[in-house]
Amino acid sequence: MNSFVFHNPTELIFGKGQLEKLGDKIDQLGNKFLLVYGGGSIKKSGLYDKLQAIFNEKNAEVVELSGVEPNPRLTTVQKGIDLIHENGLEWILAVGGGSVIDAAKAMAGGAKYDGNVWDFYERKAVVKDALPLGTVLTLSATGSEMNRGSVVTNWETQQKHGAGMTFPTFSILDPENTFSVPKDQTIYGISDTLSHVFEQYFTHTPEVPLTTGLAETIIKTVVNNAEKAINNPEDYDARANLMLSSTMALNGLLAMGVETDWATHSIEHAVSAVYDIPHGGGLAIIFPNWMKYVYKEDVSRFKRFAVEAWDVDPEGKSDEEIALEGIQAVRSFFDRIGAPSRLADYNIGDDKLDVMAKKALPFGPIGNFKKLSEDDVREILRMSL
Amino acid sequence: MNSFVFHNPTELIFGKGQLEKLGDKIDQLGNKFLLVYGGGSIKKSGLYDKLQAIFNEKNAEVVELSGVEPNPRLTTVQKGIDLIHENGLEWILAVGGGSVIDAAKAMAGGAKYDGNVWDFYERKAVVKDALPLGTVLTLSATGSEMNRGSVVTNWETQQKHGAGMTFPTFSILDPENTFSVPKDQTIYGISDTLSHVFEQYFTHTPEVPLTTGLAETIIKTVVNNAEKAINNPEDYDARANLMLSSTMALNGLLAMGVETDWATHSIEHAVSAVYDIPHGGGLAIIFPNWMKYVYKEDVSRFKRFAVEAWDVDPEGKSDEEIALEGIQAVRSFFDRIGAPSRLADYNIGDDKLDVMAKKALPFGPIGNFKKLSEDDVREILRMSL
Repeated sequence: MNSFVFHNPTELIFGKGQLEKLGDKIDQLGNKFLLVYGGGSIKKSGLYDKLQAIFNEKNAEVVELSGVEPNPRLTTVQKGIDLIHENGLEWILAVGGGSVIDAAKAMAGGAKYDGNVWDFYERKAVVKDALPLGTVLTLSATGSEMNRGSVVTNWETQQKHGAGMTFPTFSILDPENTFSVPKDQTIYGISDTLSHVFEQYFTHTPEVPLTTGLAETIIKTVVNNAEKAINNPEDYDARANLMLSSTMALNGLLAMGVETDWATHSIEHAVSAVYDIPHGGGLAIIFPNWMKYVYKEDVSRFKRFAVEAWDVDPEGKSDEEIALEGIQAVRSFFDRIGAPSRLADYNIGDDKLDVMAKKALPFGPIGNFKKLSEDDVREILRMSL
Repeated sequence: MNSFVFHNPTELIFGKGQLEKLGDKIDQLGNKFLLVYGGGSIKKSGLYDKLQAIFNEKNAEVVELSGVEPNPRLTTVQKGIDLIHENGLEWILAVGGGSVIDAAKAMAGGAKYDGNVWDFYERKAVVKDALPLGTVLTLSATGSEMNRGSVVTNWETQQKHGAGMTFPTFSILDPENTFSVPKDQTIYGISDTLSHVFEQYFTHTPEVPLTTGLAETIIKTVVNNAEKAINNPEDYDARANLMLSSTMALNGLLAMGVETDWATHSIEHAVSAVYDIPHGGGLAIIFPNWMKYVYKEDVSRFKRFAVEAWDVDPEGKSDEEIALEGIQAVRSFFDRIGAPSRLADYNIGDDKLDVMAKKALPFGPIGNFKKLSEDDVREILRMSL
C-alpha cells in the first residue's frame, strides 16, 4: 500500500425526503445565495417548486442562474461570479448533475479570488478560499457531489480543463430526484460510474485489499441495479444503490494508497473534444478496448477482476482465458443496458484518429497501469471504430 | 436502504514517514498545544523523541499530560482542561490508541464549555464547539482516530459513558508506529475491529449491498493479515491493512443506510465493568455466542456472512448448516490468533450473571437484529462461561 492523504469534509444527506433539511442549511449559511441549475428539467420534475416553497418559508433572497451547459462554460462561470459580487451573495446552491455542480464549484472559488478564475484551470493558481457550496443532486454519474474536482470549458481558447476547486459543504441526495432521468442519461451515468471504478482498480500497487474489495462491491452493486433502474425508473432501491455507488466511486476512497490510471478518461476527452459525443457513451466504447490492449501488463489482476467483480467461473480455464472473459463480461453488460459499443455508433470513422491521439496526450504518455504513447492511443481508437 | 447523514471531516494522513507532516499542522493550528499520551510506551518506541525533534524545530510551547489510563478517567480529562485554560493552549495533540484519543476528545469539547464536561456524557449537553484535535495513532483497534465518539469513566459515580464529542481535525496513521504493539494488544485490536464490523453487518435493513460488501471486505482483510502481523510484528503491509481496516470499520461508512445492532458491545461493557477484563478479549468471547443465540432471526444473512466473509463452501449443506459453519469460522479464527474463548479464561464464573445482565441494559432492551431482554443477555453470558 502507498502512503496517502484522505480528506473529504462534504456532509452527505442521503434518502427520500431529505430535501427538508435544506431549510436548516439556509439558517446556517445565510438567506442570500445564488441558485445554479441547468436546462430546466428541475421545473418539469417539480423539484423547482419544492425548492421555492423552502426558500419562501425562509424568506430567502435568491438570485438565479439557469442554463448551465452540459459542458459548463467559462463565460457561464464568470456570469455567476459577477452575480455573486453584484448582489453580495453568501453561498451557492447547485441543483443538478455534475456539470451544474462543477460550474458552481468554479464560481465558489472564483468569487473569492482577485484574478481570473481560469487561472485555477491553467494551474497558475491554487484555491485558497471559496464560498460555501451546497448541492441537490439530480443525476447519478460524476461523483462531483462529494469531491473537489471541477471541469470547465473555455470556448475562446478551445480548452477543457479540470481543477481541484472546493468540496461541497453539503450534498442532498434523494434517489427520487433521479426518477425522471431519461434512459440514455441513466445509461451514461452507469457507464461513467463504472469507468471511475475501473480507472482506480487497475493498478500495480500491491497489498491493497480494502480498496480492491470496495471497488468490486461497487461494480457488482451497479451491475445488479442497472437494469432495474432502466426498466423501472421509479425503483427506489435501484436508484438509491446507483446513486450511492456513483458517489462512493469518486470521493477519494478508491484511491486510498493506490496508483490510479485515468488514461481512458484522457482518450475519451479527446474524442469528445473533436466529436462532441456524450462522455458516458464514449467511455462505454473505449474502456473494454483499453482493457484488451493492456491486460497483459498484469493478467492476474484481470483474472481477479473477472472472477470477483463479474462472477466469471474460472473452472478449467487458463488465467488469460479468464481475464479475457472478464473483459467480455464488461462489453456484454454495456451491450445489455443499451450503451454504444463502437465509435461508428456516433458516425465516427478513421479519418481523425491522429488528431484525437495527439489531443489525448498533450503533456506526454498517459496512464499508469500501462504508459500509453500516441501510437498506443491510436491503436485503442482503431479497435473502437 | 434507510435515509442517513454521513459527515466525516477528519483528514487521514496515512503511511510510512507521514509524521513529517506534523510540522505543517503546527504551523496551521498554532505552536502552543497540549500533548496527551498514555503510559510511556511512546518513549520506549522512540516516537516521543521524534515528536520532540519536530516540536523543537517549530519552537513549540508544549504542555504535557501523560498517564492517560486504558479506561480514561474523568479526573484525567479535567486535569487536561485545566492545563489548557491555565496555559492558554490552542489545540490538542493526542499520541496513542483509543483511550488517549477518547480522553483528548473530552478535553477538546470540555475546554470550550462553561459547565462540567461530564454533562456531555450524561446527555445533559451537546458539544457546540471544541478545540482542534490532532492524533498520532499507535494502535489499530477502536477507530477513534476517525470518528467523534469518546468513552470516559467517572469513578466517583462508577459510570462509564460514551458521547459524541468531536472529530479529530487530522490523524496521522503510520503503520510503523504499531510495530511495537505487544501480541495481546494486537489480538485485542483485531477482535475490536471485527466486532465493530459485526455490529453493523447484522441488520434487517434490505437493499444495502454497498455497506454489506465493504463489511465483508474489511473482515477478509483483517483475517488475511491478522496472523501475519502477530507472527511478524514488523510486517508493514499487514500492519497497514489492519490499521486501515480498523479506521474504516468505525468511521461511519458501514452505518450508511443500515440499522445497526451494538448489543454485544453493551454486554461486554457490563462484563468489563464488573471484572475489568480487556474489551477486545471480552468481545472475542461473547460475539460468537451472540451469533449462535440470534442467527435464527435471519438465517439468510448468516448464510451470506459465512459464504462471502468466511469462505464457507455451501455445497450440499442446508442454509442453517452454512450459517452455523460461519459462526464456527469466527470462533476458530479467534482461537487461531490466541484470543480468549470463555469467560473462564478470565476466571469469571456464574456467580454474577444477574448483576452483569442488569448492567447490560440499564435503559431497556438492547440490540436491533434481535431485541435482547435481561433473560436473553443472561443466557448469552451463560453460553460464554
